[in-house]
Amino acid sequence: MASTLSRAIGSFPNRFDPGGMSALPEHLQETIRRRDEVLGPGYLLMYREPVEFVSGYGAHLIDHEGNDYLDAYNNVPCVGHAHPRVVEAVSWQMAAVNTNTRYVQEALVDYAERLLATFPQELSKLSLACSGSEANDLAMRVARYHTGGEGIIVTRWAYHGITREVSSFSPTLGTGSPLGPNVRLIDPPDPRLAAPGSTLAEHMRSQVRGAIDDLERHGFRLAALVTDCAYSSDGIFTDPVGYMKGVVEEVHAAGGVYIADEVQSGFARLGDSMWGFSRHGVVPDIVTMGKPMGNGVPLSGVVFRPEVSEEFGRNVRYFNTFAGSSIPVAAGAAVLDVFEEENVQQRVLENGNALRAGLEEITRESSYVAEVRGSGLYVAVEIVKDNDTLEPDRARAEEFINDMRNRRVLISGTAKGANVLKIRPPLAFSTADVARFLETFAEVAKVRL
Amino acid sequence: MASTLSRAIGSFPNRFDPGGMSALPEHLQETIRRRDEVLGPGYLLMYREPVEFVSGYGAHLIDHEGNDYLDAYNNVPCVGHAHPRVVEAVSWQMAAVNTNTRYVQEALVDYAERLLATFPQELSKLSLACSGSEANDLAMRVARYHTGGEGIIVTRWAYHGITREVSSFSPTLGTGSPLGPNVRLIDPPDPRLAAPGSTLAEHMRSQVRGAIDDLERHGFRLAALVTDCAYSSDGIFTDPVGYMKGVVEEVHAAGGVYIADEVQSGFARLGDSMWGFSRHGVVPDIVTMGKPMGNGVPLSGVVFRPEVSEEFGRNVRYFNTFAGSSIPVAAGAAVLDVFEEENVQQRVLENGNALRAGLEEITRESSYVAEVRGSGLYVAVEIVKDNDTLEPDRARAEEFINDMRNRRVLISGTAKGANVLKIRPPLAFSTADVARFLETFAEVAKVRL
Repeated sequence: MASTLSRAIGSFPNRFDPGGMSALPEHLQETIRRRDEVLGPGYLLMYREPVEFVSGYGAHLIDHEGNDYLDAYNNVPCVGHAHPRVVEAVSWQMAAVNTNTRYVQEALVDYAERLLATFPQELSKLSLACSGSEANDLAMRVARYHTGGEGIIVTRWAYHGITREVSSFSPTLGTGSPLGPNVRLIDPPDPRLAAPGSTLAEHMRSQVRGAIDDLERHGFRLAALVTDCAYSSDGIFTDPVGYMKGVVEEVHAAGGVYIADEVQSGFARLGDSMWGFSRHGVVPDIVTMGKPMGNGVPLSGVVFRPEVSEEFGRNVRYFNTFAGSSIPVAAGAAVLDVFEEENVQQRVLENGNALRAGLEEITRESSYVAEVRGSGLYVAVEIVKDNDTLEPDRARAEEFINDMRNRRVLISGTAKGANVLKIRPPLAFSTADVARFLETFAEVAKVRL
Repeated sequence: MASTLSRAIGSFPNRFDPGGMSALPEHLQETIRRRDEVLGPGYLLMYREPVEFVSGYGAHLIDHEGNDYLDAYNNVPCVGHAHPRVVEAVSWQMAAVNTNTRYVQEALVDYAERLLATFPQELSKLSLACSGSEANDLAMRVARYHTGGEGIIVTRWAYHGITREVSSFSPTLGTGSPLGPNVRLIDPPDPRLAAPGSTLAEHMRSQVRGAIDDLERHGFRLAALVTDCAYSSDGIFTDPVGYMKGVVEEVHAAGGVYIADEVQSGFARLGDSMWGFSRHGVVPDIVTMGKPMGNGVPLSGVVFRPEVSEEFGRNVRYFNTFAGSSIPVAAGAAVLDVFEEENVQQRVLENGNALRAGLEEITRESSYVAEVRGSGLYVAVEIVKDNDTLEPDRARAEEFINDMRNRRVLISGTAKGANVLKIRPPLAFSTADVARFLETFAEVAKVRL
């Protein structure tokens, strides 16, 4: 079966290969067969031996047999699996009522005010949606409407979502999803890509300038530059910061807007700030957010400078039935409660620093590790055939990921070469979790690195 | 403020006009002002005096003062507001765990099997999404991929959703959302539009044939015909049935697929069948569904003939984080439980028939009512200036809707002329609810009809 997979699907890191089916426990084989029958070939699983969980708490997931897995991968349950604060708030709201935004809901207004208070004051209008894809789709509709342009710039292996529009500027989806003729790609902010003697800031600015020139030469005025502030699918590049100032100047000079995609990097994931863009000292024109926003209850959002969204709001009908209704709003508000009560951002900063320091210590001597990088609880370990050539080593990365899984610690992979370990635990990751993670990582590193 | 509203926004039936703000209770004014501050002008409210609810049960909503409103409008809480079966299932699942489709989840497989069992056997593959818009966006991506065509045919005042792609074939959104150059409009199945001596079936077939010819003349091969099986925004046209057979033949002859949008008409809304398309004796190539699917928990889906989706699934990466995760699946399964336990479809059929019979009785003598129509619990009352000319009377319809609201019965309006009363209660609507509805309707009719 594996051989019939397209390049687009085949490039997905750490996917379960149905060719390995016969090695699985019988019950799992049966469920996977039934699953394929009803969901079809597009529904990929992770790991050589896929996993099923029946409960969870904090950064822990429990399987049928009661085995405790350390979750160092899932960003949606940001305040922790099955956090009682969120469970209680949503259960209570569901038992009361769920109405949409065509009715007055004081809780929605309260939530919008609280959420906007975490942004710079220039970003003062909120729209809600159901998924990160819907948020990015709406952001681009507004960007096109406001600028009158069509051109879109994203990084070379970016992922922004799966609507028709958003998949047209998500190159990581591969050849099965063609990019639009109005889309140009630039390098992600990997300092190693800057020419000798040049800075990352100079490199990024010239990349954006070049993309704008090429768009204009093809008759496309710029609508927007969109960046994932953690560059997740490009391989996770969070530092150094500061290059965005010049980049945004180029975008504005061309009449475009800057959309910060915070679906991955937002909600304190990067530790030193609530939002990834803040680390760069810029204020975007539009910010999108999603995954962790409702701790698993579908909820996403778009925040605008009012001068960017005003005309769209006045002239274009946009009603999203579920978005902003009472259930997701209850979830979103409970997440903000936990952020305050548990001082989540500070915990992310401290445990993220400890995690990276430990990983650097373990991998320092290995010629198979090009770099440990990241910020807060978003950490990358780049696996290469040799740290002189930096040639990606997908096979070694996948062995590593599956060895970790077999020791009951969940991570996965990213980057075009599928060779970068993606370590992105729930923000509930504790000091004890860091210790368990590093212990297991060191065991696997002895064999693989 | 009303005068600055665009035509697109202004055409929305039964919207709250901010010009009437000063007539509202002070507390409501304050909440609406705060709301506008954070959400902006795109967030419309319904009714001259907007409403806020704090709890609900069955087809009833309760405001701050304990007043009981009869909900004859909301289709999302299909098995009833805050149905305990759904509340319990979702609360339990949230307290256990929520994982996405990259993990094995037996409950997802069980749900997919149960849901597919409600479809003809030709429709055997399911994909899940978060909203009706996402479902229609995915359906059209698959239709384009499978057919290699780009042309899209929809009815003249259709609504299918709000992504960039889907809004391009949703004419009801008005001039603020331009239709694509690849989109053609046909009449909705209103028998009064067929030429004298012609049948509705002949009229619909010739409309579709004409649209295909015009698309091809402009260089567009047909990708899909999409119809809302209740033609909700066109004015609700459920009968007569049977014309779809010839229409689908034309679509297939041109190489296109037929997408049945069941977001409004599905889940037994029309009483005599679980899915609207079944009433026409056809099996679509793709079916989309949404709103009532999770009784308020964001959940939508697309069902395919396998030969239509197979290649897309094999070659195009599509992963929707929240869709198919444990929480929405728990909600969806609980809805199916209630359908079985409460024999929902039979109740819809019986109470829908009683409701329409009562409305026909009340309005029979009025020259302001062109027609009472619909099926199951989807009912339209078309308000006109004179039932000889059939000229739409938006003003009278809006008076009627607001009089009903002031008597604590919730309905709204639809159609291009915003002159059709839209009566679409939760499917929990009981015999007693029908009686209360008709009593209030008769009171208002005495004044307005």
